[in-house]
Order: sequence, then structure tokens, then C-alpha cells
Amino acid sequence: MIYLDNAATTKPDSECLKVAGQYLTDKFYNPSALYAEGYNLHREITKIRSNILNLIANDRDFQLIFTSCGTEADNQAVFCGGKRGNAVTTYGEHSAVFSAVNELKERGLEVRFAALNNDGSVNVNSLLSLVDANTSLVSVIHVNNETGAVNDINTIAKEVKMKNARTVFHSDGVQAFGKITFKLGQNIDLYSISAHKIGGLKGTGALIKRKNLVIKPYIYGGGQESGLRSGTENVFGIKMLELAAVKRYGALNENFNSVRQLKEKFMQSLDSDLFTVISPESGSPYILTVVAKGVRGEIILHEVNDKGLIIGTGSACSSNDKKRYSRVILSCGIDEASADGILRLSLSPETTLEEVKKAAEILNTTVRHRRQIME
Amino acid sequence: MIYLDNAATTKPDSECLKVAGQYLTDKFYNPSALYAEGYNLHREITKIRSNILNLIANDRDFQLIFTSCGTEADNQAVFCGGKRGNAVTTYGEHSAVFSAVNELKERGLEVRFAALNNDGSVNVNSLLSLVDANTSLVSVIHVNNETGAVNDINTIAKEVKMKNARTVFHSDGVQAFGKITFKLGQNIDLYSISAHKIGGLKGTGALIKRKNLVIKPYIYGGGQESGLRSGTENVFGIKMLELAAVKRYGALNENFNSVRQLKEKFMQSLDSDLFTVISPESGSPYILTVVAKGVRGEIILHEVNDKGLIIGTGSACSSNDKKRYSRVILSCGIDEASADGILRLSLSPETTLEEVKKAAEILNTTVRHRRQIME
Repeated sequence: MIYLDNAATTKPDSECLKVAGQYLTDKFYNPSALYAEGYNLHREITKIRSNILNLIANDRDFQLIFTSCGTEADNQAVFCGGKRGNAVTTYGEHSAVFSAVNELKERGLEVRFAALNNDGSVNVNSLLSLVDANTSLVSVIHVNNETGAVNDINTIAKEVKMKNARTVFHSDGVQAFGKITFKLGQNIDLYSISAHKIGGLKGTGALIKRKNLVIKPYIYGGGQESGLRSGTENVFGIKMLELAAVKRYGALNENFNSVRQLKEKFMQSLDSDLFTVISPESGSPYILTVVAKGVRGEIILHEVNDKGLIIGTGSACSSNDKKRYSRVILSCGIDEASADGILRLSLSPETTLEEVKKAAEILNTTVRHRRQIME
Repeated sequence: MIYLDNAATTKPDSECLKVAGQYLTDKFYNPSALYAEGYNLHREITKIRSNILNLIANDRDFQLIFTSCGTEADNQAVFCGGKRGNAVTTYGEHSAVFSAVNELKERGLEVRFAALNNDGSVNVNSLLSLVDANTSLVSVIHVNNETGAVNDINTIAKEVKMKNARTVFHSDGVQAFGKITFKLGQNIDLYSISAHKIGGLKGTGALIKRKNLVIKPYIYGGGQESGLRSGTENVFGIKMLELAAVKRYGALNENFNSVRQLKEKFMQSLDSDLFTVISPESGSPYILTVVAKGVRGEIILHEVNDKGLIIGTGSACSSNDKKRYSRVILSCGIDEASADGILRLSLSPETTLEEVKKAAEILNTTVRHRRQIME
């Protein structure tokens, strides 16, 4: 089975699992407990928090709050960042931000959505035109999960702050963390990450917060995570996030270059009579989104599945809302007929050249055959 | 090492881990994905949901929403149940409910707290006197996590509904689920459970909801859990919750009786000159709370820890708020001097008679010695 849906979830890293397994057996204690075994875990988590943070920021200016997933981190950012006036975001957001911002409207805020460029990146002029003196929150996805387009969030955040210095700037970094070179700049207030997109586990994420930004918790209780996220710490998941992140950052450029070569080979190997590439040249190499012309992506997904190839059609999360066309893809200016044929091929550092060649062959054959049947 | 802090967290069940391990290796897919491997996981989760639900309710009247922990389930119940007027709860709640209800006050609701009886159970007359036509939420903990007192929530819910049929009734069942015989009655609308108190994993809980009760999600995004809790499903944690719960319910009475015998033996073995029992006779056998007279519980905790015995002083979560005295214990009418000596000894079905005897011996010796030093 060739697995090319790594933007939806990755296989947990087996090396990391071996190390972290002890947190399910010997080191199972409650980190809030006062006895040595509990307190030692509390100290370990403090060190882990700092280790993860230092991969993309410095722990002098930022703090990290462990959450149960990227979605929860996005929700905390949106609901605890956007408190009044208006909230500005983009049509390119993951539903974790997009749906939360829509809920802000129910809670009395005005919400504004910036247009996208054709590749799925945000139209910065559109975004900036929406920011005014009453904007309490701006949220812009870092790497678009449906096209791989990269938004230059450090620059965008700077420009947003020039228009309104009091605006809280958040970015969903789930598809960027562990994949592209990036350091959190001084204008970013909140940044969300997830473990299971980089070899960690489902059920763990984090919200990175500028230290001097005061926000309320979103989940209240025993006061864990400096009072900003209560609930017994998921130590096993937290350790897996650290191990997976450290491993990814230890080979960040090496992985980036090898995955970029795979993506290029993939594009070359797909028959251009059958496929149109949507993902930008400058986008994340981990995501290659194409339109299979004249066919339904969902049908192709099932047909290649039977041939041993797993691919996506877009954000897995959107399969729950039963909408035929992706909001993000339509916002890129792609017509409905093309949007019907969208396929997302997402890679990992473990993906091999042989797998990519074989996948392209299966896709070419399948789409060609499907089109012949339809003629 | 003798571990008697099972009410804070249990060691993950090793048999269950062996079975669930495949969800970290072979079955790592995203359950929202459209290909067979993802969709099959979606179907498995549907079956798991029903299996867990049927242990304490029926899936005709109730639905189960997986959450990241008991705390999140409590928060969703409080924030999505308590929408207007006033919210009524007790001084005996876990901080996951207590803090969330206090936050409701910030959000414009009036909040009311019912008094406790000496054993930590709610004073039902006090509770009912607080319920009126404007009460939108009542939340009463099922088994008190600090004393083990059991509230008869089916009866209480019925009486609450007689005063106001439109009130949403929630109960935190974290210390009851998998431990005491109970079925969700027709007047309970919401019920929270947690995996890591019964041999499952930290990072998984659930909110059980009466089907005909309409509530909003608390975490928005991709629409998982019928739109009521977004975020990629933590399949490994969910499977562990099922396995651990099915195992516990498969031996519920057997475990209850053997743990009750352990608790009785424990009470008999503790020197009554040194210890006063707080937990009621009728309480959960899994929790034995005592006052070590004239000494600080925290000091005893550390001293017995050095001798190979792990115990608690109360809710582990409360160690984060740095308060010397437990709110719950003081609300039982216990004076500050006694509250200082509180120790919580919490058992599991795996606890042995030898461990209990040895633990009592260590506790007797340690408290006696500490008192001699202080004289």
C-alpha cells in the first residue's frame, strides 16, 4: 500500500514510539501529583515544552500550551483572541479556524474574510483592507492544507500590526511545523501546531503564545498548563510530539530537499493531458494538489485505493460536512467542474521515489481509463 | 512501589494496550478519510461508541461524544448547557465543573452553589432550594473525587426536573464510570466520563448526551463527532477507552466487592488514634479519605513516598492552584487543622490485600513517628 495522505495524518514514527512507550507503562503517573514520580513528570513536561518551543521560537518570548489537537489550539486562539469588534481571516483557512470564526459571529463579533490568490495563498491587499481600528483578531493559515501555498505570515503580521498594533495575530501552523524553515517573528502572537501530521499522535497539539499576551483559558479546571488549559496532561502524546518534532527539525532541510525532488518527479510523471497542477511552485513540497480533468476526484480516490494507492481529495475534515466542492478550492477561482476532480497527494520524508513513480503510473492509468469509459 | 493514587490516574491496562497497539502502527489512518482504510476506522469508532454507551445507558436514547478528557466533557456540558438565567452546582464538584461554572458568571449568568453534607455528598434540600424557573443548568458530581461519597443523581435529577423541567441536568461521572453499578436514568441529560481513571489513557474522555437534547459544539472545525466535537479522532485512545471500560464492566460487581473488602481491611488496619476516616460507609470503595491527626498530609505523602508508598492528598488537579486547604474538604465542615492532614488512598481492582496491609503499616509508623518528633 502506497500512502500519500500524509497531510491528513501520518503513521506514528516507530522509533519515537519505542522511546515514548515507557510513558504508558512505567511513567504513567499524574504530573500534577505531589509525590516524586508525579513531580518528576511535571519537570519532564517543562523541559519538553521548552525543547519544542526552541525549534521554532525562543522560550524567552514565547510559551507553549499543550492542547488535545490543532483544532483545539485554533479554537482557543480564535475564541480567546477575538474578543470584540471584528475578526479578520481568510477563505483559505482550515475549518478549525473557519468554523470557529463563523461562531464568533454568533457571539456578537463582525467577521471578515480575505480573498485568495489562485494558488490558495491569501491576497494580502484584500486582507489588509479588512483590518481596521476595531479588529481584535487576525488569523491567517501558514501553509494552506489544500494546496500547499505558503503565506509569509511574519511579513503579513507586521503589516497587520502597522494598521492596528493591538490586533492579536494568529496563524494555524499545522501544515508548516516540522516541514518548512520558519521562526516565529515578533509580530505573531499565537501559533497552532499538531503532532499527528509529523509522526506524532492524534490527540496532541499545542498553542504557542507570545508571553506578554494575556489570554483566557478555553478549557477550565485543575489549572494545568499555567492555568491556560486544564485536564490531566497526556504525557505519552506530549513526549511523542517532542520526539517527532525534534526528529523532523534535525533533518528539516534534508527532508525538504528530498521531498521537493519527489514532488517534482511526481509532477513530471503525471500525464499533463490528464492532470492540471494547482499547487504553486513555491509551495510546501509536502502537498501536491492536482485536478484530474473531466473526472470526479472521489471516484478516482476509490479506484486507486483498490490498486493499493491511498490519496486524498482535499482536507479530510471536510468529508464530514458532505459538501461536494471545497470552499478553499472554489476560493482559488477554480470552477466547479475542475473542483470536482481535485486530488491531494501529500508526502512524508518516508515516501520513496519508487512509490511516487508507481503512484503516478496508477493515477495516469486510472484517470485515462475512467475518461475512456465516459466517452 | 505500592500505588494508591488510582483516583488521580491509573496505570494503563497492559492487556488492553496489547490489543489497541495496532491503532498506532497498522491502523493509523484518518477516520474522516474517504478511502477504505479511513472509512473502516470510522465504522469501528461508531461501533465503539455504541459499545461504551451500552455499558451505562442505551444507544436508543443517548449518544456519546468523544472528547480529549473528562475536563473537556465537563466544560462542554457547563458552557453548552448553561446558556441563560442561573446555573446551580455544588461545593463538591471537581474543579473541571467548579471553575467552568465560575467562568459562567463572567459570561453573565448567575451561579449558585449547594452546600455539602459532612461526607462530601450534596445536601439535596440546599440544592433544590437553589433551582427555580430561571435555572438553565444543574451539575452534580456523581462520585465525589475527594471523599468517595456517592450522590444519587437519578433521584436528584428527577427532583430538579420537577422544579424546572427545562433545566439541563449534568453529572461528572469520572469517578463512577467503571466502578459502581449505575444506569443513566431518564432525567439525566449530560454525563462525563474519562478513560485514564479505569485503565485507559490520559487524553480521552467522553460526554454522553441525551439524544433529544440540542447543544452546540464547544470545539469547532471539521465536523467530527456529528459536528459536536471537531478534531481528528484519537483512535488509539478511543479504542483503549472501549477496551478498558468493557473489561471493568465485565467484572463490575466482582471488582466492587473485592475493593470494598480491601477498603474495610484498610480502615481496620489504620490506627484509629492516628487517623480519622472521612469517607462514608456507603461511598465508593475505590476512595478512602482519612485525616492523619495533627500532622500535615503533604509531609506524610513525601515521607511514605520515600518508603515506597504512593498516595494522594486530595484531587491532584488542585495541586496546581497552590491552595493549602481543599475547598471540598472544608465544605464538608472539616476544620482547617484537620483539613491539613487529609490523605486520599485510592484503590484499583489490581490492588492486593498485601499492598493494603503494607500501606497501612507504613502509614501508621510514619504518622506515629512524625507526631513523636513534633511533641
